[in-house]
This record gives sequence, C-alpha cells and structure tokens, in this order.
Amino acid sequence: MNIPSKHIENAVDQIASLPGIGRKTALRLVLQLMNRSKSEIEEFSNAFLMMKEHVLKCTSCGNISETEMCEICKNERRDHSIICVVEDIRDVLAIEGTQSYKGIYHVLNGIISPMDGIGPSDLNIESLIERVQNIDVNELIFALSATMEGDTTSFYLYKKMKGYDVEFSSLSRGVAIGSELQYADDITLSRSIVNRQPFQY
Amino acid sequence: MNIPSKHIENAVDQIASLPGIGRKTALRLVLQLMNRSKSEIEEFSNAFLMMKEHVLKCTSCGNISETEMCEICKNERRDHSIICVVEDIRDVLAIEGTQSYKGIYHVLNGIISPMDGIGPSDLNIESLIERVQNIDVNELIFALSATMEGDTTSFYLYKKMKGYDVEFSSLSRGVAIGSELQYADDITLSRSIVNRQPFQY
Repeated sequence: MNIPSKHIENAVDQIASLPGIGRKTALRLVLQLMNRSKSEIEEFSNAFLMMKEHVLKCTSCGNISETEMCEICKNERRDHSIICVVEDIRDVLAIEGTQSYKGIYHVLNGIISPMDGIGPSDLNIESLIERVQNIDVNELIFALSATMEGDTTSFYLYKKMKGYDVEFSSLSRGVAIGSELQYADDITLSRSIVNRQPFQY
Repeated sequence: MNIPSKHIENAVDQIASLPGIGRKTALRLVLQLMNRSKSEIEEFSNAFLMMKEHVLKCTSCGNISETEMCEICKNERRDHSIICVVEDIRDVLAIEGTQSYKGIYHVLNGIISPMDGIGPSDLNIESLIERVQNIDVNELIFALSATMEGDTTSFYLYKKMKGYDVEFSSLSRGVAIGSELQYADDITLSRSIVNRQPFQY
C-alpha cells in the first residue's frame, strides 16, 4: 500500500507501533482521525503528553500513580503485611475490581519468559525482595497467570525468598464459576479434584 | 474498571474513541505507551498534529493530498475523461495498488446508508455532479461495495446524472480469483453465470 503523504505514513507508523495493531487497521484509524477537527486532534495528542508528564509509577509497588506513592500503598486501612504479586498494572485493576482483597500489591511488570527474552533481571524482583526484607510481611500471594511462564516466575520468587519468615500462597486453580464441567480441560479438572475443598453451604 | 489516574483515564478515552477499539484494549495500549520515553511519546503525539496541519483533501476529488490538488488529479498523463467513484480514500489506495487504472477518482467519503443515518447530502455528491457538468467526462465507474448500500448509492448517482452525456459502468461481480466454485455463495454464482464473459486464452 503506497500512501501518498509522508505525514499520513508517519501517523500510520505510530499507530501501528502499538501492540496488536497492523498497518491496515492503523490506516483506518488514522483516516478516521483525519476527519476530526483541529481541536479534537489537539485533545487527542495532548492526552498522551499529559499522561507521560503527570503519571508516575509508585516507588513502592510499581502501580500507576499520580504521586510518588500510590493510593493503595498510602492507605493505612489496608493490610500491609500481605503482598499480592502480579504481572501487570491491569491485574491490580482487575483484583481491585473484585473488592475482595485488602492487602497491598507488587507489580513485576512482566513474567519470566525465555521465549521472549525476558529474564528475572528485567522484572521488579529486587525491589520485592527489599520489601520483604525491610517491612514486616507475613504473606506473599503469587497472583500470576496459570501458564508455564507464570508458574516458573512463582517458583523463582519462592526459591529467592524461602529463607525469609514469610508464607507463600498462590491463587486457587479450578473450574471457573459459571462454566460447565464437560467443557473444562483435563488438567484443570484433574487439579480441581486433587485440590478439592471442604463443602461450603 | 476503576483507573486510579485521571490522566490515564483520559488517554484511554481518547484511544477508545477510535472505531473498533474498546476500553480494555485501549487500556492495554495506553499502558504500553506509558512504558515509552518522553521523546517517544512526543513523537507519537506530534505525528497526529503534523498530519492535521499538513494533510489536506484534494479540492477536486477528495483524496488525501499535501497540496491543494492531489498527485493523481495533477498528473496530466492520466485519463481525465474517466472518473472512478469510490467510497473511501482506502479504496483509492487499493485500486492504485493494482496499477491497472489510469483514470482519475472521486471520493464520496461514505455511502448512502439509512440505517446509519447517512443520506446523499452527507456525501461529496454535489461536487461530483459539478465535475461531470464542467469537465469533459466520458465514463463514470461506480467502484462501490457489493452491498445493498453500495448498489443504492450507485443507483442514486445514476439517476442524478443520467441526463448528462456520460457512460456509466460498475465493477464486474463474480467468483473471486483463486476461490473454489463450491464455496461461492448462490447470488455471486448465479450472477457470474448470467454475466458470463467471452473466453480469453
């Protein structure tokens, strides 16, 4: 596709640099932007500049924040002795959405994935170890993806910190609520039988 | 999902304002942008401002252009007596990509679609009629989508301009090249039999 304008080409390249967006989709989006007024485009562009200028990462947990320390870490009514270890900021938003967790977080900003060239040194692991050493932490919850990479990361963190006086837990695995048994995969079903829980009524 | 920063929220809103992008995807893209450097974000934002400032629409055909008249309309080696009527700028790029058309274009910027509230007055139809009246046009090619809306638009344009000394044609419909006959739908197959062409060898 030969775009007859360098400025359009440049805008398409920028949109296509976002993950999961190809050049055809990018062109569609850019042409839609072209139809907007100048002030709307300024609003669009300014949103990202303002974001970069004002949004920081919490120096303690790595969550997004507009202050040096995020609202969750600053909140004294939360239980600072439990740290939930997550891969991504979106996981914090998802768990916060459930309103069933009152501890604090630690965002790794990725998981160990040799296939993608991501090793332990690329993640916020040192700062997690520092927190466990310096603060009175009772429990670390590994809330990582139920994949090989997630399990590898949990195991790596466990090995790094098993010497400290802290308990380790991970999210329960099993049949998702609302799903039919016959469609559950073998591994999930077998795990949910082995790890069966006392009946609650 | 409760995003704990108004600036992130604003950036997500802007990305989600693009067609076909939901808030979850927008958040993923915005967090990816957050990881870029300040200069990269400036480059990202500037691309759209520069585009809006420098890219115009050709005053003659409505194609994108960095000058008042686009490269195609300015090119004297193209056949200005044939106008290909398309819905969108992307259709111009697609047809140009085939390198098998040497006439000029007219971009309607949409098609008549009562379901979406788009009527003839929302499209660049007046300027097309003016071109047919003022320039020596021999043929109008309706290169619109093979849908109800596309056919409606072609018919509307035909009725508006059938009084002028101009021939009308539309893209040929039939079995796509490379596709197997048994998978062609009934209407396409029946049309391709009725409109069968002299055998070329």
